[in-house]
Amino acid sequence: MEETRYVLRPVGVVRSSLVSRESCPKQGWEGAPEAWLEIDPAFADGLDGLSVGAEILILTWLHEGRRDVLRVHPRGNPDAPLRGVFATRSPDRPNPVGLHRVTVTAIGEGTIGVRPLEALDHTPVIDIKPVLHQADER
Amino acid sequence: MEETRYVLRPVGVVRSSLVSRESCPKQGWEGAPEAWLEIDPAFADGLDGLSVGAEILILTWLHEGRRDVLRVHPRGNPDAPLRGVFATRSPDRPNPVGLHRVTVTAIGEGTIGVRPLEALDHTPVIDIKPVLHQADER
Repeated sequence: MEETRYVLRPVGVVRSSLVSRESCPKQGWEGAPEAWLEIDPAFADGLDGLSVGAEILILTWLHEGRRDVLRVHPRGNPDAPLRGVFATRSPDRPNPVGLHRVTVTAIGEGTIGVRPLEALDHTPVIDIKPVLHQADER
Repeated sequence: MEETRYVLRPVGVVRSSLVSRESCPKQGWEGAPEAWLEIDPAFADGLDGLSVGAEILILTWLHEGRRDVLRVHPRGNPDAPLRGVFATRSPDRPNPVGLHRVTVTAIGEGTIGVRPLEALDHTPVIDIKPVLHQADER
């Protein structure tokens, strides 16, 4: 069963006021709101060490993304020339993994407040990583 | 079949001189070599628009990572206190997706040269994204 090696296990879900793809900012810094991550209790031990004010990277599964598309109009602008998805941040891509840099605003019982986050309500969370300035900013 | 929604499709593979986890730098900037990404021809159209000198993010599947671990000793140092995996960049995590910021050094027929990359030879590539300075560096 080769395929089972590549099955993601959502570790939580985004809770956000953003409920439609059309209403989402393209990127967090373009006016995205504060949101909450609800972490599955089975994975809560993995949060140990995160603190308010930390900068983190959230990896999500962009469940409304189209996986059969290899070229897109950047930012959904029909006037922009088609471009390979790997040269864009489109949610449409073979593996629709979203990457979001946010600041932790609150930590609760199995929940994390973050800002700004442009992901839709109910988007599955697949990973959280701390920002490492030397690795991520060069 | 809920699970099929979360199955990753590798789009390529890392070719590198790094062949054992023990020999890998923890992060790219810690002396990692140049490497090549071999992209599956079925996904090659997605590369359109990438160019030499571009800064990109590579998402990999860290196939030697342990998925059943929620606390680790940071950087594998047994003297460091255990910490939740979501507060570390350990390859051991529920979804062992690696994130690597690199510069494109060459573009060939279905291949991309990148530097520096701390991923092992044969590591599956699941996504490539351009760095967006406003989104990724804040």
